[in-house]
Amino acid sequence: MCGIVGIVGKSGVNQALYDALTVLQHRGQDAAGIVTSHDGRLFLRKDNGLVRDVFQQRHMQRLVGNMGIGHIRYPTAGSSSSAEAQPFYVNSPYGITLAHNGNLTNVSQLAKEIYESDLRHVNTSSDSEVLLNVFAHELAVQGKLQPTEEEVFTAVAKVHERCRGGYAVVAMITGYGLVGFRDPHAIRPIVFGQRHTEQGVEYMIASESVALDVLGFSLIRDLAPGEAVYITSDGRLHTRQCAVDPKVSPCIFEHVYLARSDSFMDGVSIYKARLRMGEKLADKILRERPEHDIDVVIPIPDTSRTAALELANKLGVKFREGFVKNRYIGRTFIMPGQAARKKSVRQKLNAIDLEFRGKNVMLVDDSIVRGTTCKQIIQMAREAGARKVYFCSAAPAVRYPNVYGIDMPSAHELIAHNRSTEEVAELIGADWLVYQDLPDLIDAVAGPKVKIDSFDCAVFDGKYVTGDIDEAYLDRIERARNDASKAKTNAVSAIIDLYND
Amino acid sequence: MCGIVGIVGKSGVNQALYDALTVLQHRGQDAAGIVTSHDGRLFLRKDNGLVRDVFQQRHMQRLVGNMGIGHIRYPTAGSSSSAEAQPFYVNSPYGITLAHNGNLTNVSQLAKEIYESDLRHVNTSSDSEVLLNVFAHELAVQGKLQPTEEEVFTAVAKVHERCRGGYAVVAMITGYGLVGFRDPHAIRPIVFGQRHTEQGVEYMIASESVALDVLGFSLIRDLAPGEAVYITSDGRLHTRQCAVDPKVSPCIFEHVYLARSDSFMDGVSIYKARLRMGEKLADKILRERPEHDIDVVIPIPDTSRTAALELANKLGVKFREGFVKNRYIGRTFIMPGQAARKKSVRQKLNAIDLEFRGKNVMLVDDSIVRGTTCKQIIQMAREAGARKVYFCSAAPAVRYPNVYGIDMPSAHELIAHNRSTEEVAELIGADWLVYQDLPDLIDAVAGPKVKIDSFDCAVFDGKYVTGDIDEAYLDRIERARNDASKAKTNAVSAIIDLYND
Amino acid sequence: MCGIVGIVGKSGVNQALYDALTVLQHRGQDAAGIVTSHDGRLFLRKDNGLVRDVFQQRHMQRLVGNMGIGHIRYPTAGSSSSAEAQPFYVNSPYGITLAHNGNLTNVSQLAKEIYESDLRHVNTSSDSEVLLNVFAHELAVQGKLQPTEEEVFTAVAKVHERCRGGYAVVAMITGYGLVGFRDPHAIRPIVFGQRHTEQGVEYMIASESVALDVLGFSLIRDLAPGEAVYITSDGRLHTRQCAVDPKVSPCIFEHVYLARSDSFMDGVSIYKARLRMGEKLADKILRERPEHDIDVVIPIPDTSRTAALELANKLGVKFREGFVKNRYIGRTFIMPGQAARKKSVRQKLNAIDLEFRGKNVMLVDDSIVRGTTCKQIIQMAREAGARKVYFCSAAPAVRYPNVYGIDMPSAHELIAHNRSTEEVAELIGADWLVYQDLPDLIDAVAGPKVKIDSFDCAVFDGKYVTGDIDEAYLDRIERARNDASKAKTNAVSAIIDLYND
Amino acid sequence: MCGIVGIVGKSGVNQALYDALTVLQHRGQDAAGIVTSHDGRLFLRKDNGLVRDVFQQRHMQRLVGNMGIGHIRYPTAGSSSSAEAQPFYVNSPYGITLAHNGNLTNVSQLAKEIYESDLRHVNTSSDSEVLLNVFAHELAVQGKLQPTEEEVFTAVAKVHERCRGGYAVVAMITGYGLVGFRDPHAIRPIVFGQRHTEQGVEYMIASESVALDVLGFSLIRDLAPGEAVYITSDGRLHTRQCAVDPKVSPCIFEHVYLARSDSFMDGVSIYKARLRMGEKLADKILRERPEHDIDVVIPIPDTSRTAALELANKLGVKFREGFVKNRYIGRTFIMPGQAARKKSVRQKLNAIDLEFRGKNVMLVDDSIVRGTTCKQIIQMAREAGARKVYFCSAAPAVRYPNVYGIDMPSAHELIAHNRSTEEVAELIGADWLVYQDLPDLIDAVAGPKVKIDSFDCAVFDGKYVTGDIDEAYLDRIERARNDASKAKTNAVSAIIDLYND
Repeated sequence: MCGIVGIVGKSGVNQALYDALTVLQHRGQDAAGIVTSHDGRLFLRKDNGLVRDVFQQRHMQRLVGNMGIGHIRYPTAGSSSSAEAQPFYVNSPYGITLAHNGNLTNVSQLAKEIYESDLRHVNTSSDSEVLLNVFAHELAVQGKLQPTEEEVFTAVAKVHERCRGGYAVVAMITGYGLVGFRDPHAIRPIVFGQRHTEQGVEYMIASESVALDVLGFSLIRDLAPGEAVYITSDGRLHTRQCAVDPKVSPCIFEHVYLARSDSFMDGVSIYKARLRMGEKLADKILRERPEHDIDVVIPIPDTSRTAALELANKLGVKFREGFVKNRYIGRTFIMPGQAARKKSVRQKLNAIDLEFRGKNVMLVDDSIVRGTTCKQIIQMAREAGARKVYFCSAAPAVRYPNVYGIDMPSAHELIAHNRSTEEVAELIGADWLVYQDLPDLIDAVAGPKVKIDSFDCAVFDGKYVTGDIDEAYLDRIERARNDASKAKTNAVSAIIDLYND
Repeated sequence: MCGIVGIVGKSGVNQALYDALTVLQHRGQDAAGIVTSHDGRLFLRKDNGLVRDVFQQRHMQRLVGNMGIGHIRYPTAGSSSSAEAQPFYVNSPYGITLAHNGNLTNVSQLAKEIYESDLRHVNTSSDSEVLLNVFAHELAVQGKLQPTEEEVFTAVAKVHERCRGGYAVVAMITGYGLVGFRDPHAIRPIVFGQRHTEQGVEYMIASESVALDVLGFSLIRDLAPGEAVYITSDGRLHTRQCAVDPKVSPCIFEHVYLARSDSFMDGVSIYKARLRMGEKLADKILRERPEHDIDVVIPIPDTSRTAALELANKLGVKFREGFVKNRYIGRTFIMPGQAARKKSVRQKLNAIDLEFRGKNVMLVDDSIVRGTTCKQIIQMAREAGARKVYFCSAAPAVRYPNVYGIDMPSAHELIAHNRSTEEVAELIGADWLVYQDLPDLIDAVAGPKVKIDSFDCAVFDGKYVTGDIDEAYLDRIERARNDASKAKTNAVSAIIDLYND
Repeated sequence: MCGIVGIVGKSGVNQALYDALTVLQHRGQDAAGIVTSHDGRLFLRKDNGLVRDVFQQRHMQRLVGNMGIGHIRYPTAGSSSSAEAQPFYVNSPYGITLAHNGNLTNVSQLAKEIYESDLRHVNTSSDSEVLLNVFAHELAVQGKLQPTEEEVFTAVAKVHERCRGGYAVVAMITGYGLVGFRDPHAIRPIVFGQRHTEQGVEYMIASESVALDVLGFSLIRDLAPGEAVYITSDGRLHTRQCAVDPKVSPCIFEHVYLARSDSFMDGVSIYKARLRMGEKLADKILRERPEHDIDVVIPIPDTSRTAALELANKLGVKFREGFVKNRYIGRTFIMPGQAARKKSVRQKLNAIDLEFRGKNVMLVDDSIVRGTTCKQIIQMAREAGARKVYFCSAAPAVRYPNVYGIDMPSAHELIAHNRSTEEVAELIGADWLVYQDLPDLIDAVAGPKVKIDSFDCAVFDGKYVTGDIDEAYLDRIERARNDASKAKTNAVSAIIDLYND
Repeated sequence: MCGIVGIVGKSGVNQALYDALTVLQHRGQDAAGIVTSHDGRLFLRKDNGLVRDVFQQRHMQRLVGNMGIGHIRYPTAGSSSSAEAQPFYVNSPYGITLAHNGNLTNVSQLAKEIYESDLRHVNTSSDSEVLLNVFAHELAVQGKLQPTEEEVFTAVAKVHERCRGGYAVVAMITGYGLVGFRDPHAIRPIVFGQRHTEQGVEYMIASESVALDVLGFSLIRDLAPGEAVYITSDGRLHTRQCAVDPKVSPCIFEHVYLARSDSFMDGVSIYKARLRMGEKLADKILRERPEHDIDVVIPIPDTSRTAALELANKLGVKFREGFVKNRYIGRTFIMPGQAARKKSVRQKLNAIDLEFRGKNVMLVDDSIVRGTTCKQIIQMAREAGARKVYFCSAAPAVRYPNVYGIDMPSAHELIAHNRSTEEVAELIGADWLVYQDLPDLIDAVAGPKVKIDSFDCAVFDGKYVTGDIDEAYLDRIERARNDASKAKTNAVSAIIDLYND
């Protein structure tokens, strides 16, 4: 998962891009980058680290220009060098830079194609670099000295033909304009909006509406599946549907966990969706365990708080914040002659005994992935004196890997993979466990008023909306992931950099 | 405000000190430092920044030894250079390092004394360096080749005689042991505890009990006012009352705002105290405005959440988290030819309109200091559609400056200074405003069971427990603060460093 | 002026490239860079600074692979950002990196062409980036999936057709091989050689033979004018003449000043050439001033020492090192409220009075450019007690700017521009002054045995061998230089970086 | 060996101290430091590295004040952490900083004393920290609030009583003045001088006169053995003899190798001394080998050039610079899975074959220590075609370790230790070898006019002028050195820092 932003402004955009990236920082804390364009030249700064650490005064001063794009990266299994921080750049044609959230599922084939037919060298293992080269090639073959929206939209259409997977993209064509586009299933989120200034209208494209909000832009709308938006450097906005058979199937996990609660995605208020998840869960508990003896509902901070509060309201049970989150997590250092120690959950959460002692507590989390953290938290609740510990997950059981850009473990590492709810409850040590039902989750997200064709719910039901994911593919990524983690443990990590650090 | 920690362990203490500092990081994010001692040598690392940024692998590897102290600093008006990060060091006698939370009110006189009678050079404007030199001098004049608890406690007693103000201190005497002590009014907090390991018992001194907790130490108790604890490097613990007329008067603001809710201070659960603050506030509202038309209670994250939840329960009104806090705040850069812009509250908080639209909302904060943030938040609530905006503060009106180590504005910058509740309400734009009454706050903190002589409530009532604070003193610090802020705006800040950066 | 190197080895080449760059460091101390290729990926490190400062252990570890190129840059008026350090990279076609010594005189037209017909974006003001894009384009248009020597040499031939000026180039085609080429007038130097190892033959291309020497490579030969050498990644070497009407006209200033005395260029030993310059000068002095009263010959260190020693021998006058060079030059810092002070010659040279007191001294330098340093040195000689100070220059009067890659002042800053020898002597304060005659310099460099068509002597005689330099061009670069120096003094230097720093 | 400097100026001294350190940089390239004092505060910057790398603009801006001292350090076997860079600081009494060139031979006993009787903690293994504490203690016991020259000179006298070895010291007493002193045998060099400015007279103390020279100060004189100079912060200069039985015995190795040739030491021009070394050597050769067949004299750059030129003149043989020194030496990196390779002499020197081919060459070096470099150079000469290779050393055979601050190998690593001249010649591969005779060296240095009681020639004759060096001491340092080098090879170097880096 990553966050992207692009702005065509009427004055320098560096501070606005920076601020937008801090608002989107929850989507990735691993690396950050900004590229701006001024007078035909590009100015780039990217590195590993939080936004506030990557950009210093001296970097900001160089990021001149009224147009630019930015990116923040989630740490993924494969790529972690600063050279793979985004945006990426190619000089032919026009000088194009690009930032991307998502994952291409046919990246190996594309990498081969762009080398063999386009002779383009790709220097990292990032699918974003591949995507950039496909887009660049499709612009180049049209051979126009000055690309207009026609060429840009034609190139996006070609990208949709050649690429598979989920992707939300901002790209800047030096001297010409900013383009944003979304995959034909609308899996990954992307919105655009505008702000009126004395110098004229400014446009912004971003992963989440909250970035528009905080910067004083008003949301125009989400990009439709397959749609592209092109804003010229002088501020004219064009949009076009570039896909043949577009279908709205956004990733439902954004609503469960990834997005900020004050964002709207495809017309849905994340906050409301989470309230409804709490309601639906309460309904299920009341239905299945009408005689429940829950004394108190305690959220596991931070995401699940919204659902837990509504759950408690609906159950008519007291809501209490029994866990305090340590907001300043440090590293565990390896001292000479010592083995690495694992940071325990205790360093992230601390229980307030008062709220547990002698009570039957219902812990609420947004989802259960590996289950290891759950298990430790339940253990903490018991040590704090809880009589019974019940657990509920605002999402259904996570049973399948994500292939559209969310960094999740492979299938065999998922605690619910091939296991029943009771088996999971026993493994994590809960007295009993409730998962949200998938139809309930879908109802909760879609709500009564929003019209969405379907959702990408593959992590819950194994149905991959792009239609190109089979067992062979899943096996391959599982092996790659294992190899990557092995490689990591191997002594010297031969970090690969084309650009300096 | 700052955080301090000290450990005498049975193996290397660097990681434990580091972890403790991250747990205490809420007490200061400006600078961090650790010094350890091994085989008669000291190893120091300190710099400006968060704990996670100051300590890298290469620093941790050097911080060898089974005994050490650490410090995290809150940014204060005066001192912000990395040279003034703590711990401080003097080589005579024995090599002593010290870290301190609090403020000495007679620092100018002490600085003069230690130079004139002790010939000791102080190179910073930090009162901690002065305190260290007083302590060092009082140890030196006893002239023992090997100091024992007798000499250490005698020196602490002398420090109590000479120093005025609030102070909680850890100091390390190279090769001998760790000493912790607390001012004779117990204004600033300090606790100690122990942990059993296979190699023997380890001791820890810290600002808050939560640091013991998270690291698996059990709390022995708070230091009494004027008391000192001395733990020899081989693990023997001694305590002694070193003050003539000690009196428990802890700073009540720790309970309102500073401390983590999962800490205990002087026998009080901060969490419980905050719940009771909510209860007391509800009582007052019900008493004064029995006909209130509040639709929803909304906390201003994060500290006030506990009180607000209980307030809502007691009022029987819905509790909702209507503000989302942006956890990743960036800087505002100054571009050539631009004026500095102020970071608005909008970049820290975002309102979820749904919870405001058409409602009478009661906003809850822990306290109101300058009032500028309050005003902006109330404005945001109105823009989000609130019909009426009421405001309540879990603490009474803040009307006087703090002189015991909490960095607060001077009197004339406090919105409630010389103003009535109604005047403040109008200034911040609230339909009406409720402040906690001071007796209620004291009751809430003391609770039914705890025995505390009195509290330092000077910021609310202007009564300074040390008895040495007069108008002249307050005028002086107000002027100093103004000068400091002026100096800051003056071009080049001649940062003063004795130690390298 | 710059230095270039490229190696196709049988094991990792990073250390060898690094060592070669230190040997060539006299050709530029401003920036350094290395790119290597391994398994289809590129690894780059470049930054401002000396070789020993730019490359740290962590950088070297990343520079894996058996093939690579390196560059060191001389500080020039225009480009000084780390983003303009070389090598440069384009990803299309194949991924090509390039490092270059020289200057293109038709760079504006080329920049326009590559944008307009090739749609290639150039992000710096460096002619090397333009040259790279021309070469890349000429490879790309041939459209081969796997380029062979045919395509490479065809592309070089096209470069010769399109580019004007002096250039010696190494470029790496990722996965395929290393190419070196030299402009059709052979203005800038470039040699290649080989080394036998147990794993097979390794090849090296470099600016000067001394780099081969020190690394244990044996010189094969200089590249002929217009010639290219292509070494495949598996170690097969191809050479071809790629220019239509090649002509050997090397820059004679390499022999005067730029090259290391232990290098051979185009068959000439620089050391011998400098000895002969001393001889010729002695002849001229004996001819023109047979009655001279020179007591001692003193070189101005370091370059002129060789010529001065032979001059003294031939004159039969004592040779003495009367100046000591300070090898560790520091910066002059600007303190707040101070004007910048100029570093005087005194901080670079110190006179040993003993060798000057009461003597008639003949100072020898390699050349006189601006004359400001000369003047100060003559002044120092007089202050050290010299009775008379004569001065001789191993090169003729420098009267015209260099346009082939040596960073020299523009015409009006040259002390000898439009001035007679006597006028220069008076300006620099010498009792009399002798310049080498140009025919003598040519004889000295060519020597009795070497066959060179002609030399580029434009700085002395204003005849530019490429035939495209007219008054308009010289005016343009003079204006550009003035603008650049003005821009520099303007407050904030908006440094322009595409790559990170 | 190290370099020291101190200045009492009339305006900021940071740039002048910096410039002086660059002039003295030949005395040490390992670490550099400056401390200044302004308005009762100290400002320090020190770190490992060259002067030009250690001090950046931001550091210089902090180094405010009209008084300060500086230091550059030679890398020694023991201490290489940046924490052991000088100047050192103690805060009691007055705040004293100190920088030192030399070595104390009774450091262990002193370290014990200052801890046991003065309770002073010493945190490094540096004898300079011990020396500082002895001096500080001797000032402190006098107990004056404001120290005058009386107290300062009394403290220096006490230092002379307690300390053994060679030492040249500058120390700054915050707010009062600058003191310089020299050990009672005058082993290490130290001079002082003055400069007239519009604001008044400025004083400078430095290791070598050349630092005065280059900065426009005029030399007053060398400090006499045991003498101290005290310059108050307002510019009054006092000197006093502080030793009981002072005797001039300067280290003769300064003249052979350490000092810059344009310095004067104890009245001797280093340059002239080196000319005379060449003369004396020529006399010996003519005496011992009247029939010699030397064709050419070739110096091994840089130090021996002066002696070699005069040697050639006296022999009537041609002088030629047959070796070119590479001025930019890089590091040899350790790649994963590789053994460390040794940097060969070839990367430091390159032979010009022309000057060797078919000739009998006489190579001249200043001295022969381990002999390993010599051997490689002779080998290079033969590979360059020399028929015969003779070698001469401007100094006698080095047979004993130095204990007064020059970092030399221990006895058993010295090639001449227990070996005859012929044996050394054979080991290094010379056809024959000539060493300077010690009486000749003494004559060469003392010259006809200078009055020096004696020289410290211990490395040649094993007579240690301080009278406290016996076999046991030499054994101890040999063991310590071996242990240090072993410790170095042991994986993690537990670098010990009290101050930050």
